[in-house]
Amino acid sequence: MRILVTAGGTKEKIDEVRYIANHSTGRLGSIIADNFAQDDNHHVTYIHGYGAIVPENKAIQLIPIFTSQDLESAIKHELTTHTYDIVIHSMAVSDYTMDNAFSQEELLTHLKEALFNQQATIDEQTFTETLSDVLAKLGKENEDKKISSSNEHLLLRLKKTPKIIKMIKEIQPDTTLVGFKLLVDVTEDYLLSIASQLLAKNDCDYVLANDLTSIEGDQHTGYLVSPDGSLTKAHTKPEIAEMIKQTLTTK
Amino acid sequence: MRILVTAGGTKEKIDEVRYIANHSTGRLGSIIADNFAQDDNHHVTYIHGYGAIVPENKAIQLIPIFTSQDLESAIKHELTTHTYDIVIHSMAVSDYTMDNAFSQEELLTHLKEALFNQQATIDEQTFTETLSDVLAKLGKENEDKKISSSNEHLLLRLKKTPKIIKMIKEIQPDTTLVGFKLLVDVTEDYLLSIASQLLAKNDCDYVLANDLTSIEGDQHTGYLVSPDGSLTKAHTKPEIAEMIKQTLTTK
Repeated sequence: MRILVTAGGTKEKIDEVRYIANHSTGRLGSIIADNFAQDDNHHVTYIHGYGAIVPENKAIQLIPIFTSQDLESAIKHELTTHTYDIVIHSMAVSDYTMDNAFSQEELLTHLKEALFNQQATIDEQTFTETLSDVLAKLGKENEDKKISSSNEHLLLRLKKTPKIIKMIKEIQPDTTLVGFKLLVDVTEDYLLSIASQLLAKNDCDYVLANDLTSIEGDQHTGYLVSPDGSLTKAHTKPEIAEMIKQTLTTK
Repeated sequence: MRILVTAGGTKEKIDEVRYIANHSTGRLGSIIADNFAQDDNHHVTYIHGYGAIVPENKAIQLIPIFTSQDLESAIKHELTTHTYDIVIHSMAVSDYTMDNAFSQEELLTHLKEALFNQQATIDEQTFTETLSDVLAKLGKENEDKKISSSNEHLLLRLKKTPKIIKMIKEIQPDTTLVGFKLLVDVTEDYLLSIASQLLAKNDCDYVLANDLTSIEGDQHTGYLVSPDGSLTKAHTKPEIAEMIKQTLTTK
């Protein structure tokens, strides 16, 4: 079988020197990739964030990416070049990317000018329209430079990134897709209900649900949720890797 | 001589899973530390960001830190515990840390309520006071959780971090302090004038000035600026390390 694993985290550029990142190390993804690759009949490709842990097996093809946009390009390229039987999308993709940045002082100055330049008082409708307009435009002329640090408060305005996971089945409807959901300090019931919703929302065949508070080193509680409501549970990263392989290769 | 080198970058937490980082690798700082430590008469301590490159010399004491606040604690601890002859502060310290986060929709809703709940129109003064007040409070109740990604635009409001470099001579007025200034794609004249201003502003004995566009691998143009106006220039990381050691140990 041909298997695509994504792992680690994307990084979103703030300016020439700064970026937004996440704590995903890629360790679980690398173990999943190695666990498939040890069987001779599996060909594994591993798309990973820069700095993420990579699998040990040298037969695995590595594709490093930086931003969520890089990830989108890499996944589209793989799925339009090869037929993948399985896609395991464990990468922590940034939900947001930079739109524009401005200081609180700039926001105040530009809003006051836009609102009160022509009139002494303004009503709610004028205010609503002006706020959205000013927020969308502020600071866009300074893009790509290092943001000045002379102001007391800086505002970073982020916009949502496209849902890359939803593109996978659009390109290859017949692949078996495993999505991942990480929440922080929620109940098991809540975690599983969110994971079940994701099956339909992101067009996944399975969702691996986990909670950051149940992860420490190789100790890692993971639930594999499937559309028929069945559920399997594992307690370490190697167990999660084996649970995914067994479920996907013996169905 | 006892020498403190800081290197790599700090990371500032956005929420439980995300953080703001910078591209500093610590490579130059690690070479500077190794270059001092190879002489028997120097004792080197190396404070570095997590994931940064560390020196090869095993005699160097390593102190890893995550945030700018961790850095402040570590530097204060070192400077109140030992007398350092030289402090080389090459670490890229985040100028900003998280204050609060909120969606654009939340901002609009809360501002409208604060502004137009009691009156149909408002004047400039009311607006100015209300905006600052709402910006300062929004989203503070959600701190430390993973920020929801259900909104189209997210605003991160950052506040300035304290200038850690200014604390160094306050604790040890007799140490020799080297500050670093990285700019992006500026003229040599501009870079050197900013570096000269920093000597007084940050109470440094020397400033190592460099431009990101003149750095590629070990090729690295650096200017060591001193208060008497004298200037030395180096073209690689090892040359910069040697220039700093020669200047500081033979003065």
